[in-house]
Amino acid sequence: MTRDWIALDWTTTRRRLWVMRGRDVLDEAVDDGPRPADAASILALVAGRHAGQGVPVIACGPLGPVRDVVPCTPLSGGLWQIDLGDPRVVLNAVPGLAQAEPADMMQGDETRVAGFLALNPGWDGVICLTGDTSRWVHVSAGEVVSFRSFLSGAILSSLAAGTVLGRWLGAAGVDAGAFSDAVADGLSRPEQMLARLWSAHAAATLQGLPEEAARAQILGGLIGAELAATRPFWLGQQLAVMGEGQMPRLYVDALAAQGAPATQADATRMTRQGLIAAWEAITA
Amino acid sequence: MTRDWIALDWTTTRRRLWVMRGRDVLDEAVDDGPRPADAASILALVAGRHAGQGVPVIACGPLGPVRDVVPCTPLSGGLWQIDLGDPRVVLNAVPGLAQAEPADMMQGDETRVAGFLALNPGWDGVICLTGDTSRWVHVSAGEVVSFRSFLSGAILSSLAAGTVLGRWLGAAGVDAGAFSDAVADGLSRPEQMLARLWSAHAAATLQGLPEEAARAQILGGLIGAELAATRPFWLGQQLAVMGEGQMPRLYVDALAAQGAPATQADATRMTRQGLIAAWEAITA
Repeated sequence: MTRDWIALDWTTTRRRLWVMRGRDVLDEAVDDGPRPADAASILALVAGRHAGQGVPVIACGPLGPVRDVVPCTPLSGGLWQIDLGDPRVVLNAVPGLAQAEPADMMQGDETRVAGFLALNPGWDGVICLTGDTSRWVHVSAGEVVSFRSFLSGAILSSLAAGTVLGRWLGAAGVDAGAFSDAVADGLSRPEQMLARLWSAHAAATLQGLPEEAARAQILGGLIGAELAATRPFWLGQQLAVMGEGQMPRLYVDALAAQGAPATQADATRMTRQGLIAAWEAITA
Repeated sequence: MTRDWIALDWTTTRRRLWVMRGRDVLDEAVDDGPRPADAASILALVAGRHAGQGVPVIACGPLGPVRDVVPCTPLSGGLWQIDLGDPRVVLNAVPGLAQAEPADMMQGDETRVAGFLALNPGWDGVICLTGDTSRWVHVSAGEVVSFRSFLSGAILSSLAAGTVLGRWLGAAGVDAGAFSDAVADGLSRPEQMLARLWSAHAAATLQGLPEEAARAQILGGLIGAELAATRPFWLGQQLAVMGEGQMPRLYVDALAAQGAPATQADATRMTRQGLIAAWEAITA
């Protein structure tokens, strides 16, 4: 009989959990909001979804130490067993990946990359994963060769929550023309990024720049500056972009405007697929 | 007899108030923490420091509309009278300055610039004012010719409050060697700024980079990128830097390392001096 297990995607701001039987999803839950990655939080989340004793949980995210150093396969290092002090749950965390120079780390995205490669065997190229950090991961022959992380997403959330720019970042839409102008400007003058953010605020406050254009200018300026920094990653490479919300679409649009077509992948599906790969690696 | 008045420096995170008689300071107070710029807050602050009826308050900060467009003298536009609905206080706000292209605005720094010019008549050059926004103001023949604002300070506060980088930004000291390396790197590759921030976190987490060096890398990277963007402002110009806390010193150090010596001015004194100039302009 195929055993039940739980797949858990843990981030500081959101948890996604699947109750699995082999590769089949029996149940699914999302828990939003910040939560400490401690035993109590994990037990509360897992215990409510499954009555079995000692159900194995395969989790990715900032839970265990970072172990592997690139280049390596995304799941090469096995799993960390973390004792939560409760026999109802056995937690196995996918170790994150580290890079020595430039110093960099990921905890969670290695699992999404593994899921993408499981569904696209033999795929070589660069995967851009958006989120609190946006991360550009160079994949070749099944291995993560190198990567580079940018705090763009965290900066945007922080600006929205704690500064006058929050006024413009709440808008739903993004003006397409203003976005592509801002991407081009960000690409050609990336050093002006922090001035451009304030300038969008000034233009919206004083010159009647519409909200959707102000938002486009902020997002486009950030993404454009990131494209300037990651040119060696995306130029002439096969590209995939994944993440949640509207950001992946904006990255795909920004890349397309530079003549760099990118596939958009479903981050949630890739995460689950990566956790399945990790599960199968220890049960096969 | 010289009349009493109140000088008020209003920012979103801090208020500084002086009870004045002519140019003399009778009393002084600082009120920390966020506060809405409404009648109740201003009255609570002012009424507790002075018993007189109808005492005039000369204030700078984000209180009234932005009126003047550069080039202009920093206090050319007179004062806004703002009715607080209470006869005990007459509020006069120094209007902010706007710039059409690139769109930009300041509310408060025009007063500090006016104070600096009042104490240094005939001074031409560029004044860098640190704070939530760091602002580079080109001054010539007593006029603000152009300026450019960067969200560096607000980004730092947001990162400290809302991200994993807060762990390193709480440190007291800044490693001098790591700081000057980071400034140089920020200057030569400003597009990598958001990657450098995360890289400091990774190096401190995984490679034992000391806290003071991580902090230096974050601050130096930000300031270096800003120096790359403002090169036309500081290159070959007479320079002054002012602001609160340790940031002005770091900007002076960063500029000195580029062969651009800058004078450090006392921002609090310049603010008060600017408010005195505004008061004297309407009472002379």
